[in-house]
Amino acid sequence: MAFGWIDEQARARRRTGLVRTLRPRAADSPLLDLASNDYLGLARHPEITEAAAEAARVWGGGSTGSRLVTGTTELHGDLERELAEFCGFEAALVFSSGYAANLAAVTALAPHGSLIVSDSGNHASLIDGCRLAHGTTQVVAHADPQAFRKALDTRRRPAVAVSDTVFSVDGDAAPLAELAVVCREFDAGLIMDDAHGLGVLGTGGRGALHAAGLAGAPGVVVTVTLSKSLGSQGGAVLGPAHVIDHLVNAARTFIFDTGLAPAAAGAALAALRLLRREPERAARARAVATALHARLTAEGHEAVRPDAAVVSVRAPSPEQAVRWAADCRSAGLAVGCFRPPSVPDGISRLRLTARADLSDGQVEHAVRVIGETRP
Amino acid sequence: MAFGWIDEQARARRRTGLVRTLRPRAADSPLLDLASNDYLGLARHPEITEAAAEAARVWGGGSTGSRLVTGTTELHGDLERELAEFCGFEAALVFSSGYAANLAAVTALAPHGSLIVSDSGNHASLIDGCRLAHGTTQVVAHADPQAFRKALDTRRRPAVAVSDTVFSVDGDAAPLAELAVVCREFDAGLIMDDAHGLGVLGTGGRGALHAAGLAGAPGVVVTVTLSKSLGSQGGAVLGPAHVIDHLVNAARTFIFDTGLAPAAAGAALAALRLLRREPERAARARAVATALHARLTAEGHEAVRPDAAVVSVRAPSPEQAVRWAADCRSAGLAVGCFRPPSVPDGISRLRLTARADLSDGQVEHAVRVIGETRP
Ligand SMILES: Cc1ncc(COP(=O)(O)O)c(C=O)c1O
Ligand SMILES: Cc1ncc(COP(=O)(O)O)c(C=O)c1O
Repeated sequence: MAFGWIDEQARARRRTGLVRTLRPRAADSPLLDLASNDYLGLARHPEITEAAAEAARVWGGGSTGSRLVTGTTELHGDLERELAEFCGFEAALVFSSGYAANLAAVTALAPHGSLIVSDSGNHASLIDGCRLAHGTTQVVAHADPQAFRKALDTRRRPAVAVSDTVFSVDGDAAPLAELAVVCREFDAGLIMDDAHGLGVLGTGGRGALHAAGLAGAPGVVVTVTLSKSLGSQGGAVLGPAHVIDHLVNAARTFIFDTGLAPAAAGAALAALRLLRREPERAARARAVATALHARLTAEGHEAVRPDAAVVSVRAPSPEQAVRWAADCRSAGLAVGCFRPPSVPDGISRLRLTARADLSDGQVEHAVRVIGETRP
Repeated sequence: MAFGWIDEQARARRRTGLVRTLRPRAADSPLLDLASNDYLGLARHPEITEAAAEAARVWGGGSTGSRLVTGTTELHGDLERELAEFCGFEAALVFSSGYAANLAAVTALAPHGSLIVSDSGNHASLIDGCRLAHGTTQVVAHADPQAFRKALDTRRRPAVAVSDTVFSVDGDAAPLAELAVVCREFDAGLIMDDAHGLGVLGTGGRGALHAAGLAGAPGVVVTVTLSKSLGSQGGAVLGPAHVIDHLVNAARTFIFDTGLAPAAAGAALAALRLLRREPERAARARAVATALHARLTAEGHEAVRPDAAVVSVRAPSPEQAVRWAADCRSAGLAVGCFRPPSVPDGISRLRLTARADLSDGQVEHAVRVIGETRP
């Protein structure tokens, strides 16, 4: 049988308790959500959903083609302009996902003969970007500027350093300022994935690069997703105009992909405008994360101090992590559960996300449930 | 300067007239559209846009997480069930784009040590899937079953053959029945990308696999996009349930990507239901393509006989292709223009797409404009 070999893998997954299954959720799910990446609580905000609805009505259900043919509407143009301005970059280019944006940035900026230095904790989409790029990738120790320095200290040019700003599993931050210094020293480009920083870090949620004074700096490119803080779908690359022009001409996941659906572009644009009007949402998401971490560690849990809105709690084993998350769910609390093979370090954890619209009472309730279900 | 090298490439593009630029379109563009992939004219159908709007209102602007965490709603489940049933496959899995679906299918079904045989005319997303997969890729002559047979006739197993059903540039069809025979002979899986077949080919638009009597056959996997005939955004992989389960557990662009936005899922589901009610739309798209081709060749143009809804017309050179398309646009007609480096064979062409909702008068008008602007 052609695909017979996958059944052996399936049996192995069942033996080791690592089977993943889909659990469709209802629109009126009663669960308290500490699992989604809806950091600002905007995905179901009426202003955002109404903007999605209006964009679909005005522009259609889909963008109908590649961004280079019929897939660029004036709405895409507005979103790119306002996103670049908000984050402090010269230009922006919107993709159908953050995943596609990361593939584009890394592949288009790491040509044949170039060097890519990549943090070992980087997101799967950056890793796939490195694999697809024609340059040579060197993976370096996690969040270690000296490891980047050592790897960049060769003759191989052009070179780029690639890192998440906030790592998705543990929610810890990259040493951004130091990475920028190292890149400047070696004339290397810096590509930072701010998927978990946009909307949470920096003044009014302008992101990790803005917070570090690096927004708009020459040689700095940032990728973001529209699917987390902005409550929508899609991704973007932000940087100097000549880099963005290069992506328009060279990035395969831009050229050969249908443009982002109007509803998603409209929702993200509305979220951006709302965030501009209500900048306190970003600080509130951080405060909720800090409070969540403080209460959990006070209760004796081993949790990573959050640099943004992700709070990671260690679990003793994959099986116990799964059971813990399931018990939380039975008690009305949705939490993420990360375990091998999603986590390369093999450490299983509950992944909690803070949301700006969580009340102090809800945080307290979540901590209680997590404590009561502890394995 | 870190990204100085891209300026040299930009100058080379300007010298050779190959600069690509974005042209945002207005919502009320007066152009006659023969450029989009909206084959059934559904992207702006009120039933589809209203379904997108309603889905955003009920489910939110985004799906808020990975399909494995919070990103699977009941709406995703409904779409997967109805898509599989419509196309005649056991199961389906929805992705954020057709590009992501192709990356998933190829990478997850071509493990270390395996063989991938890939048609030289395949879409960029299949090619990137081959590059990312751990298997070894052999690229074979375009639409040539004997070339596939020769490549598969080795001991390397597991093996998959990978091909578009309808090639996106010229609109020609793959030798599907022959490919299936060859794959069965060598116990190889068959992965077909039906991006341009769904909604156009087969009974009521059930796709190329259905038309060939291969829907639901063991060892056959098909990928589709929701962004063309279905007027939305997203993609899907359809196949035997054990293959779909494998993708849930192994496909990186599924696991590490945010789920498709509810509005896009809702629009695609509405399009599917409309197509079921109005199956004649598929035949009408094919009839428009046939008429367009007949009229163009009668006028002396060199056009490829369409196997689906794409009609490709040769242009004498890249520069003249660009001018031809621009002159069409000035005369109120939007057409696609494919030229190097998007076309690996180096042949420039106008790419026209038939739509089910084009009137005979509009086809006639388009042919007149294309004739009058011919270089
Ligand atoms: C760090 C990081 N980068 C990129 C992505 C991909 O973004 P998207 O889901 O919009 O494709 C994610 C999560 O999904 C992420 O966590
Ligand atoms: C043959 C083919 N496969 C896949 C895709 C990618 O689909 P999507 O645009 O939904 O990502 C396209 C076009 O965009 C295509 O033409």
